[in-house]
Amino acid sequence: MKLSKKVESMQFSPIRRFNPFGFKAEADGKKVYHLNIGQPDVETPECFMDAIRAYDKKVIAYAESGGINDLRDAVCDYFKGYNMDFAPEDIMVTTGGSEALNMTFLTILNEGEEVLIPEPFYTNYHTFATAAGGKVVPITTKTEDGYHYADKDQIESCITPKTRAICCLNPGNPTGTVLTLDEMKLICEIAKKHDLWIIADEVYREFVYDGREMASFGMLPEYSDRVIIIDSVSKRYSACGARIGFAICKNKEFNSGMMKIAQGRLCVSTIDQVGAAALFRMPKSYYDEVKAEYCGRRDVVYEELMKIPGVVCQKPGGAFYLTAKLPVDDVEDFLMFLLTEFDDHGETVMFAPAAGFYATPGLGKNEMRIAYVLNQKDMKRGTELIKLGLEAYNKKLGK
Amino acid sequence: MKLSKKVESMQFSPIRRFNPFGFKAEADGKKVYHLNIGQPDVETPECFMDAIRAYDKKVIAYAESGGINDLRDAVCDYFKGYNMDFAPEDIMVTTGGSEALNMTFLTILNEGEEVLIPEPFYTNYHTFATAAGGKVVPITTKTEDGYHYADKDQIESCITPKTRAICCLNPGNPTGTVLTLDEMKLICEIAKKHDLWIIADEVYREFVYDGREMASFGMLPEYSDRVIIIDSVSKRYSACGARIGFAICKNKEFNSGMMKIAQGRLCVSTIDQVGAAALFRMPKSYYDEVKAEYCGRRDVVYEELMKIPGVVCQKPGGAFYLTAKLPVDDVEDFLMFLLTEFDDHGETVMFAPAAGFYATPGLGKNEMRIAYVLNQKDMKRGTELIKLGLEAYNKKLGK
Repeated sequence: MKLSKKVESMQFSPIRRFNPFGFKAEADGKKVYHLNIGQPDVETPECFMDAIRAYDKKVIAYAESGGINDLRDAVCDYFKGYNMDFAPEDIMVTTGGSEALNMTFLTILNEGEEVLIPEPFYTNYHTFATAAGGKVVPITTKTEDGYHYADKDQIESCITPKTRAICCLNPGNPTGTVLTLDEMKLICEIAKKHDLWIIADEVYREFVYDGREMASFGMLPEYSDRVIIIDSVSKRYSACGARIGFAICKNKEFNSGMMKIAQGRLCVSTIDQVGAAALFRMPKSYYDEVKAEYCGRRDVVYEELMKIPGVVCQKPGGAFYLTAKLPVDDVEDFLMFLLTEFDDHGETVMFAPAAGFYATPGLGKNEMRIAYVLNQKDMKRGTELIKLGLEAYNKKLGK
Repeated sequence: MKLSKKVESMQFSPIRRFNPFGFKAEADGKKVYHLNIGQPDVETPECFMDAIRAYDKKVIAYAESGGINDLRDAVCDYFKGYNMDFAPEDIMVTTGGSEALNMTFLTILNEGEEVLIPEPFYTNYHTFATAAGGKVVPITTKTEDGYHYADKDQIESCITPKTRAICCLNPGNPTGTVLTLDEMKLICEIAKKHDLWIIADEVYREFVYDGREMASFGMLPEYSDRVIIIDSVSKRYSACGARIGFAICKNKEFNSGMMKIAQGRLCVSTIDQVGAAALFRMPKSYYDEVKAEYCGRRDVVYEELMKIPGVVCQKPGGAFYLTAKLPVDDVEDFLMFLLTEFDDHGETVMFAPAAGFYATPGLGKNEMRIAYVLNQKDMKRGTELIKLGLEAYNKKLGK
């Protein structure tokens, strides 16, 4: 029995590839610090389960295909709090940011058409674009530049007659890089000149540090006919398992196309929507608390990393990821060493090798991604274990 | 800004097209009996919300991409109850049966490849197949034959070099037609001969009447390498808003392809999975109760329909739908008459015109679908209103 070419060309999550070795290390009695996954340990606000527990309808019925009114209203109010004006019909509720991306690519890409994405990038974009018949074209960025990509010449050099969209995950995963509002404007200008859509994946929107103001592509109304904002409760409210996301757009043709797909899949989880509406009704102070927590973790990781000779990394401005160059030839080989040969007092550490985040073959071989989703003490010890592991690794290699 | 050709070729739900006129009738003070939608009024078993209310993890975290173990185990046990043997890794948990179909088409169809589906069919198959780049080829069935399609010559006449799968929604929507196990075997034989997949959408599996034994394509292990079973909690447990479905298959390559897509979209709602696991743990007696309820409703509708001169309909054997020919030239025109001109003591009725369930243009113009999802009294009155409406409609037309 044959499978489709599309699914053949998709890949398994490169982040999960090393999991069996991590599990083996744990089975062998080692403590493993998991700096490799994007699942925060921050508690989901209690209002989520409280709202669900209070739900008393006797029939768990289909919701409206575009989302329940209460949630769409709550999302509009959230944006109003940042002086962005969206109507409920601009908000399409989706099964996580994942489905929002999936449906968006399907709505705008024809077979073989291209979407520009700065690399290293969140690997699942490849799966979503491929599913829609499209192709990811990377805008390559460098560790030394802090993975910045808002460069007119560089972006335009990647545009072809087949380009349909520029996709910006901002703040970035795996890099933590943050665009300024001026940089967003520049990208919008380029998109307008070449008649491209902008897919603005802003699921980490609130997590910007060092005095940066929260910024959004939604703050540039003059480009609103081409801007599609992707959003999600997963990271903002530490509710990854809730699977509530959004595609937010003011272009009526786009919304109409999305609604055809939305009606096809009927609706999004009714119960999760009820909980999500409560999350969006929380006061802004919630974001400040969570932001302070992640910023503290980032500072610890960055400080510890800077103690390691040969590490290259600019302090990331947002999200809860950091990508750095390590002084090794092959980060995957080093990670295997950490999981199978190394320990310090029975402890070792796991990160995500960055090669899987690049579309260009050969890039990222000496880079790793750290997700700072554990408490400061664990993040500090985890990063220290990378340092100690490197010393042992170099010793083994006779360096 | 241009949209993709795929999304342009998709259609809005034809079932929902008449909703604005139904709402208008209600706003004007008429009572409308909604025989047009597949949302049952049967209460969701309390164990669903009980299990969710008892969930006490502090972080609503990502679930495993293939589904939580407890749910996959519960599904295996459910099938064991019918002497079907599946392992947890054969069960892919999806966001409703919708996502299971979506992922399945994506996994097996290349651009332009064909899937055979008996028409009239559940319209969203068209959306899912189109999204994957595939094409629906209808096997046309007739009211007079009770919409049966298990005919070797007819099925084989639809097969081309591009055919990749036969899709059987059994029991059927919109027809309520039920395959016997022998008919399933025949379809499997055809699939084997032409090397096709079988997509067995069995979301109404338990709802078979008149002494029919529940049957499944999963009961034919000799074809298990090509059988993909689609399942869902929506109809079986009257939990449409729970968005928990399944793609169940013993073909490891297929499951591996599905897992790539599953990892891309991360996971299915954690909370809904917790509730769904409780649903699958209910005793078999639950199905008997619900089945008796739907069977009683069907009997009422069928009996009332048979009182209408000129109606053509065979008594459907399963699901909770019935498609019938009405003695009118254009069912949509008749429906508009019911909603905008007719009432009996301030009441009128709504059904789904069947033309939207056909892929072949021009077919189904004098057919309607009724969903018997309301209580017997309402179903009886709703069907009576069709009779009274027809009399008034014919009078208006001067017949």
